[in-house]
Amino acid sequence: MTDTWVKHLAGKFIVFDGPDGSGKTTQFRRLIELAQTHDITVCEVREPGGTEIGERVREILLDPEHDNMHVRCEMLLYMASRAQLVADRIGPAVERGELVLADRFISSTLAYQGTAGGMPQSEILSVGRVAVDRYWPNLVVVFDVDEASAASRLNPLLDRIEAKGAAYHRRVRQGYLDQAAADPEGHLVIDARPDADTVFTDLCIQLANRIT
Amino acid sequence: MTDTWVKHLAGKFIVFDGPDGSGKTTQFRRLIELAQTHDITVCEVREPGGTEIGERVREILLDPEHDNMHVRCEMLLYMASRAQLVADRIGPAVERGELVLADRFISSTLAYQGTAGGMPQSEILSVGRVAVDRYWPNLVVVFDVDEASAASRLNPLLDRIEAKGAAYHRRVRQGYLDQAAADPEGHLVIDARPDADTVFTDLCIQLANRIT
Repeated sequence: MTDTWVKHLAGKFIVFDGPDGSGKTTQFRRLIELAQTHDITVCEVREPGGTEIGERVREILLDPEHDNMHVRCEMLLYMASRAQLVADRIGPAVERGELVLADRFISSTLAYQGTAGGMPQSEILSVGRVAVDRYWPNLVVVFDVDEASAASRLNPLLDRIEAKGAAYHRRVRQGYLDQAAADPEGHLVIDARPDADTVFTDLCIQLANRIT
Repeated sequence: MTDTWVKHLAGKFIVFDGPDGSGKTTQFRRLIELAQTHDITVCEVREPGGTEIGERVREILLDPEHDNMHVRCEMLLYMASRAQLVADRIGPAVERGELVLADRFISSTLAYQGTAGGMPQSEILSVGRVAVDRYWPNLVVVFDVDEASAASRLNPLLDRIEAKGAAYHRRVRQGYLDQAAADPEGHLVIDARPDADTVFTDLCIQLANRIT
């Protein structure tokens, strides 16, 4: 295949998401490199955090002492960090015609605090629309991996989120698949179990078909 | 007037709100004392903060270095702190039949980030309903004071919010009055310009007429 599709990434806002251990961050780095070799300016952001204020919020979210944090508080902290990230970085980059690549976004909140955490998707979506104003992603790429494969890739030093049990992680995975099924035009599902080279080839083929 | 009305405070969730310098916190303390002399258990909360997680959020909100905080992020941080406060303290206290008295609540967000900060009331209300779940206040008492009187009561060591200008504070005041006008059954407006004794007498008379 040729790389002519890559130029269509300019001006797009694409989210990479999936369970912990899906390898999405490796793929994120590879797509950034590919875009940059085609002279596309990339604005890369990660969640939670990505701004000075967002990093302060991230500390609260990932502090293992906050195991009494209510899921509504947790969801709203993610959204607060996201609102600052959109206002400071994502919105201006989209307006400049850059490729915005986000490692996690509202799709993470829908999977973790929604499907796995018990909050209704409708409530998360209504808060999400307020948080991001008009900057909804053009595409969410879901890196799908079964829970056993994901666990084998995870750092044994678990943070507060990662330390939850296997049933929780199965619900997270299902959450992503449910989002993609509910909005197939807004999502790509990539099988993330093979080695990184194979996954990246599959990602490029699917993006080439979708990004125009 | 007699104090027989005071017993009806039990099981209610009442918010005291108004511009900085309105004297609401003095009145808050007085109503708590009155309720306690009638053997009513009071759950008193203040915003932002009131829980360990909320105090961490409060530090971010009131840090003078965060003058680039976007209003959507600010609004969502207040709501996150509020969600934890409702889950940890307000909800359980209401269920136990205590009097819950809150120094600031969603009414503050509607006035500061809404009317004064430019966010639509509808967006704040939709996030607020998600944040507080089913624990909406029975009554919001607005302590109304003109901007000049309020300024004379304020500590000269201003925090990030208080340091904003006079026009901002006039919009805040108008925000509270607009909320009361839009929902007269859910609000009491108290003239907060007189001395504290006079204001407290007025407060008790109006509460006695409203709380049953």
